[in-house]
Amino acid sequence: MAAMELLLLSNSTNYGGSMFSHAAEAFAEVSAGDRVTFVPYALADWDDYADRAAAALGAFGIEVVSAHRSGAPERAILEADVLMMGGGNTFRLLDSLYALGVIGRLSRHVREGATRYVGASAGTNVACPTIRTTNDMPICHPPSFAALGLVPFQINLHYIDPDPASTFMGETREERIDEFLEENDCQVLGLYEGSWLRVSGASAVVAGRSRLFQRAGCHTYHEGLDVSGLLHLTPAFDGGRRPVRGES
Amino acid sequence: MAAMELLLLSNSTNYGGSMFSHAAEAFAEVSAGDRVTFVPYALADWDDYADRAAAALGAFGIEVVSAHRSGAPERAILEADVLMMGGGNTFRLLDSLYALGVIGRLSRHVREGATRYVGASAGTNVACPTIRTTNDMPICHPPSFAALGLVPFQINLHYIDPDPASTFMGETREERIDEFLEENDCQVLGLYEGSWLRVSGASAVVAGRSRLFQRAGCHTYHEGLDVSGLLHLTPAFDGGRRPVRGES
Repeated sequence: MAAMELLLLSNSTNYGGSMFSHAAEAFAEVSAGDRVTFVPYALADWDDYADRAAAALGAFGIEVVSAHRSGAPERAILEADVLMMGGGNTFRLLDSLYALGVIGRLSRHVREGATRYVGASAGTNVACPTIRTTNDMPICHPPSFAALGLVPFQINLHYIDPDPASTFMGETREERIDEFLEENDCQVLGLYEGSWLRVSGASAVVAGRSRLFQRAGCHTYHEGLDVSGLLHLTPAFDGGRRPVRGES
Repeated sequence: MAAMELLLLSNSTNYGGSMFSHAAEAFAEVSAGDRVTFVPYALADWDDYADRAAAALGAFGIEVVSAHRSGAPERAILEADVLMMGGGNTFRLLDSLYALGVIGRLSRHVREGATRYVGASAGTNVACPTIRTTNDMPICHPPSFAALGLVPFQINLHYIDPDPASTFMGETREERIDEFLEENDCQVLGLYEGSWLRVSGASAVVAGRSRLFQRAGCHTYHEGLDVSGLLHLTPAFDGGRRPVRGES
């Protein structure tokens, strides 16, 4: 059995940059000259998205085929050497993976090292045990929030610090993650834009800036972070208090 | 049958203000001297939240009891003259309402005018047909996204314009609502912070600034907006394209 190989990006595009260019070397390392199968289902316009991803990765010499152009997209996904799960809306992407019936088998292929997995944004969210730390709007209702579970902790993408000058009264990202921890006992790795997590076998290392949240508190890491120890976690979901019906 | 009376606030607290104070007159009009039953389940600390809400409304002379202090909270909710659904996490609030089994009966009581309904933030989200336009993190999984359906359109709270100076690459609020419209054919009323929707029988009027989104485009209203016509809409949910399995 080969080692699991994951490249989980916070975001597809850095401000002022072109798609995937900030992570070009990491893409080259993971794809290792092999063709990449792209999954465009997190956005509505699959053709346009697949063309843009193919052009972006083509600029680094990486060949791309899109699963949606196959007569059997589930087979294209399950037979991929390297799978790239594109970003967009996480609820729509997970619902699409359930519609194709690939969740369990794709997870096994990746964990067994048969398929290398690259995700960006929504594509990173669905690599987690659940999509419960997505920032996306719940525009549709997948049958479950359970996702691929390639790592046993949650990741929050596009992580952003509170703006001290803001007059906005909605929750900050940190407050939202604290609410997640009230309901679930599972560490959350916040990846600032431009950062990614690289997993190779038993090693899991962040490139760039990150923030790790757990019930005991959180800590910011500026220079990368080895989170290999988190690969042995057992997350616990649910457990928040709910009102109970009385004797009415 | 009495007229339906709703007060649906974008946010509980304006920047620099105290809780509910920006809408004190509207609270007084809807509660009309009657006791308000508060629902604290969108936050984790029910006692603290209920005490803060009671103090805030008490300052305008409004008496508050909290449903969570009743031996039969579902009965307290269903027998309320005026119900105030507090803000917090929308997924947790809806899950709590399902746990209490009150969704259908509460909706009927409010639509028949037996219970006047006040919501803020998450409490406004659950007044919509679904919670599909919430900004909140899906920290838990309610059995359905279907909510009270007191109005036949969606509302987006804490609505905020894109910041032209931002370098953040995550979706803007407008982009998220556009994704909602790709999957659902249902108008979305964006309420900027400080705004609210007041429904009284066949009249539905926004106080403050709002933005109305539909598939044909969107428009910003600066000075209030009469949306009574929207009360006759028939929303259509789902319908976005999904990949289909091939002949594999």
